[in-house]
Amino acid sequence: MPETNQLKKEQLKETLALACRILGTEGHDDLNLGHLSVRSPEQSDLMIMKGRGLCLSEIHTEDFVDIDFNYQKVAGQRDAHGELPIHIEIYKKRPDVNCVVHTHPLYATAFSATGQTLKPVNNEGVLFAKPLPYFDRVTDLIVTPELGEALADKLGDEKAIFLKNHGIVVVGESIEQAAVRAYLLEKTIKTLYVAKAFGEPTWTEDAEAQQKAGRIFTGPKTNAMWQALVRQLEYREAPLRILKLLENRIAPSE
Amino acid sequence: MPETNQLKKEQLKETLALACRILGTEGHDDLNLGHLSVRSPEQSDLMIMKGRGLCLSEIHTEDFVDIDFNYQKVAGQRDAHGELPIHIEIYKKRPDVNCVVHTHPLYATAFSATGQTLKPVNNEGVLFAKPLPYFDRVTDLIVTPELGEALADKLGDEKAIFLKNHGIVVVGESIEQAAVRAYLLEKTIKTLYVAKAFGEPTWTEDAEAQQKAGRIFTGPKTNAMWQALVRQLEYREAPLRILKLLENRIAPSE
Amino acid sequence: MPETNQLKKEQLKETLALACRILGTEGHDDLNLGHLSVRSPEQSDLMIMKGRGLCLSEIHTEDFVDIDFNYQKVAGQRDAHGELPIHIEIYKKRPDVNCVVHTHPLYATAFSATGQTLKPVNNEGVLFAKPLPYFDRVTDLIVTPELGEALADKLGDEKAIFLKNHGIVVVGESIEQAAVRAYLLEKTIKTLYVAKAFGEPTWTEDAEAQQKAGRIFTGPKTNAMWQALVRQLEYREAPLRILKLLENRIAPSE
Amino acid sequence: MPETNQLKKEQLKETLALACRILGTEGHDDLNLGHLSVRSPEQSDLMIMKGRGLCLSEIHTEDFVDIDFNYQKVAGQRDAHGELPIHIEIYKKRPDVNCVVHTHPLYATAFSATGQTLKPVNNEGVLFAKPLPYFDRVTDLIVTPELGEALADKLGDEKAIFLKNHGIVVVGESIEQAAVRAYLLEKTIKTLYVAKAFGEPTWTEDAEAQQKAGRIFTGPKTNAMWQALVRQLEYREAPLRILKLLENRIAPSE
Repeated sequence: MPETNQLKKEQLKETLALACRILGTEGHDDLNLGHLSVRSPEQSDLMIMKGRGLCLSEIHTEDFVDIDFNYQKVAGQRDAHGELPIHIEIYKKRPDVNCVVHTHPLYATAFSATGQTLKPVNNEGVLFAKPLPYFDRVTDLIVTPELGEALADKLGDEKAIFLKNHGIVVVGESIEQAAVRAYLLEKTIKTLYVAKAFGEPTWTEDAEAQQKAGRIFTGPKTNAMWQALVRQLEYREAPLRILKLLENRIAPSE
Repeated sequence: MPETNQLKKEQLKETLALACRILGTEGHDDLNLGHLSVRSPEQSDLMIMKGRGLCLSEIHTEDFVDIDFNYQKVAGQRDAHGELPIHIEIYKKRPDVNCVVHTHPLYATAFSATGQTLKPVNNEGVLFAKPLPYFDRVTDLIVTPELGEALADKLGDEKAIFLKNHGIVVVGESIEQAAVRAYLLEKTIKTLYVAKAFGEPTWTEDAEAQQKAGRIFTGPKTNAMWQALVRQLEYREAPLRILKLLENRIAPSE
Repeated sequence: MPETNQLKKEQLKETLALACRILGTEGHDDLNLGHLSVRSPEQSDLMIMKGRGLCLSEIHTEDFVDIDFNYQKVAGQRDAHGELPIHIEIYKKRPDVNCVVHTHPLYATAFSATGQTLKPVNNEGVLFAKPLPYFDRVTDLIVTPELGEALADKLGDEKAIFLKNHGIVVVGESIEQAAVRAYLLEKTIKTLYVAKAFGEPTWTEDAEAQQKAGRIFTGPKTNAMWQALVRQLEYREAPLRILKLLENRIAPSE
Repeated sequence: MPETNQLKKEQLKETLALACRILGTEGHDDLNLGHLSVRSPEQSDLMIMKGRGLCLSEIHTEDFVDIDFNYQKVAGQRDAHGELPIHIEIYKKRPDVNCVVHTHPLYATAFSATGQTLKPVNNEGVLFAKPLPYFDRVTDLIVTPELGEALADKLGDEKAIFLKNHGIVVVGESIEQAAVRAYLLEKTIKTLYVAKAFGEPTWTEDAEAQQKAGRIFTGPKTNAMWQALVRQLEYREAPLRILKLLENRIAPSE
């Protein structure tokens, strides 16, 4: 592998690990379930994916596995998750997609169990103003290539899809974009959840939603949101870092 | 007691203490109420049970008592909880059960006050797809052997039971299995709670639920979930560990 | 003052400060509003009360004021809260009451804005099974002796009362009892709040509620609950204690 | 600039930074979105405003920019937010206003998506008893002077305004007053949200609301609430301060 690709791969792993820990600590952790992947920079039919066993909130660069699009693990210590088809079949159909997120956050998962269509209730809602598709062929895990293909078909050229009584899949051109989208999808559904308690909400209409989305979710602005999520992660990880610092520095000196 | 049994007993106490602290810090703490027990490895008509006085989140191995199935405390410093019959009568009727959990978590306890039947709304919901029984003879504490027997009868061969206006009882072949089930029961009801705010949920139908449950909740996968809960406990316990580390290491050195 | 009374007073202040910090960190903090008092052990027409300015979660023994039942401050550095009449008029009518709590916790305050009657939805609900009175003459603060008297009249011989669109008043024979009651009142209303999202709840009927309450809320059991709350406070206060420990021990040594 | 104005400006920046971090950690953080400003003490057509890029919870004095009312940045390292017109057009029409807050907190933003009129459900509700205006000309960002003017017109002489499917704007004579109002607006809507789950709430009627508001929200009392928020911020910021203290003091000494 050329040196620059190797470097780029290491950087992608750092970013993917951050995305895992950000989503994991922002309501997407579901024990050791849920997974993120990124398309390899060196080979378009290979992905780097969270390995099995750990929570999203625990992931570091050594916890990834490399999987090719023939479903073979070609690198990595950990076992692969069973829902590989979600990732591989989407990558195959969507050359624009370089990151796939599949998680079970509370509000979006509950919403996936209603069959309702998400409409834009607040600022981030406009990002998903064009109705997101809904996969209801099964509520079971997506463990066969055939189911993965069906899911990828239903996703079409959209940013995300609801999996009936199961959770969400969110995609992006980059890890940063996919992670910010997944974060915002859960957040807008939480706002909808609160609004519904007051009564039937108002919505941003289609034309305005498109205009508003264009204003808020440009590339640089999405990147600034990602940077904000990275910095907020530091706050949530502080207690464990303090504990480790103390155990390493103070304890052994006695 | 043979040495291996003694060792096994110590390990079970370590595991039971972890299960108490995991559930206690995952929404099952209700002041000093609620209790877990494990059947003794040395004697099938004896159990090791959380003693009275402490919260689940505070339990360590020295806080257990040994109770035989004649309701006699045979070891341990603490007093016994009054709801011994829940544990003893279930162990008597269910030789497959080696761990009993009785707690009052927010969502499951609220659900127990509706008389509704739980249906599978998300992934972990399928674990409880066969409708869980509902004990409504009393809403009072289960403090007589006769009530314990009635509860055990109603539980039948199920994984868990709702106690009307009171809480839940969850059982398992092992501590790990029972604790993971109790965690997931509360979690699926929380998801149902959110889904209901949006409108009437969709469900996973029976045949698919069985198939999905078989896929997600195998022995090794349940164990991996348990391991995830053990690691997450470390995060929640970090502040107190930091405080103790500092009080022990820094303060006295002056 | 005899030495034993002085000692008793210091102990009461320690306990009252704990009760303030427990309730403050358990959902009863409302900025610097809300207050607790205890009847003086030396003089039955004098009370020791949280002074004005601090949050409940910040109270230590030096933050109390002594107020006699002629509404005169006779000791203490801080100003008195304006709602003295709540405390004084209740103490005058209820010789059995030695502690008064007035707070605005989220769930109980929201419930006070419905005019509904609280019914026992879970274990702690039975403590309030005899319908709690509801003060609706004003929603304003209780700042005159006349309003305080009216409130005390409406309270009658009950444990607590809802103040329409305002909050709650809870009383007890001891600080421990009043604090545990205030904690449990908020908790049972939170459970009711969740239950209502599922549908119309079931209730524990009157006779059983009385029996169940007698079983769970004996003096020693209430005291064990108080002790649990005291220990849990340590967990919530850990971050600030760590910070102070580090600032005092490490920083100045450089 | 005269020395006293310079000093006053530095103090205002300190206070504005605290207001940003208080609101950011009290539910008003929305990634790097939302902004606060204060009118300059030296020049009534100039404002000091949070710069772009950081979360409210991260703001310190070096993160502000100076913007004049011709929309020109005249000082500061960071870029300006795009929604300058909210601030500038309100300052132009409201000489009494010296601080403008625009944020997207969960409950108030959800409420802004209902078109409902806020009525006083609890103590702090009376502060907003005179119905708050509702800006529904667009749900898009307020990025032109013309939209800013329309918003300022709709605000009139009120304390705050709902922006349809977007969020809130809150104003005050001082930073402290505006921040306390913004905090209390979100809090009262959260209480309303809970109350609605129980059924239709009761309200404080107009005359009593005015009297109650006059009692609770005097200048000194609002200032005491501000001081409480400042002290509570210390608690929430403790983990990061501990981490920095340890990294600076312990680590380098090895």
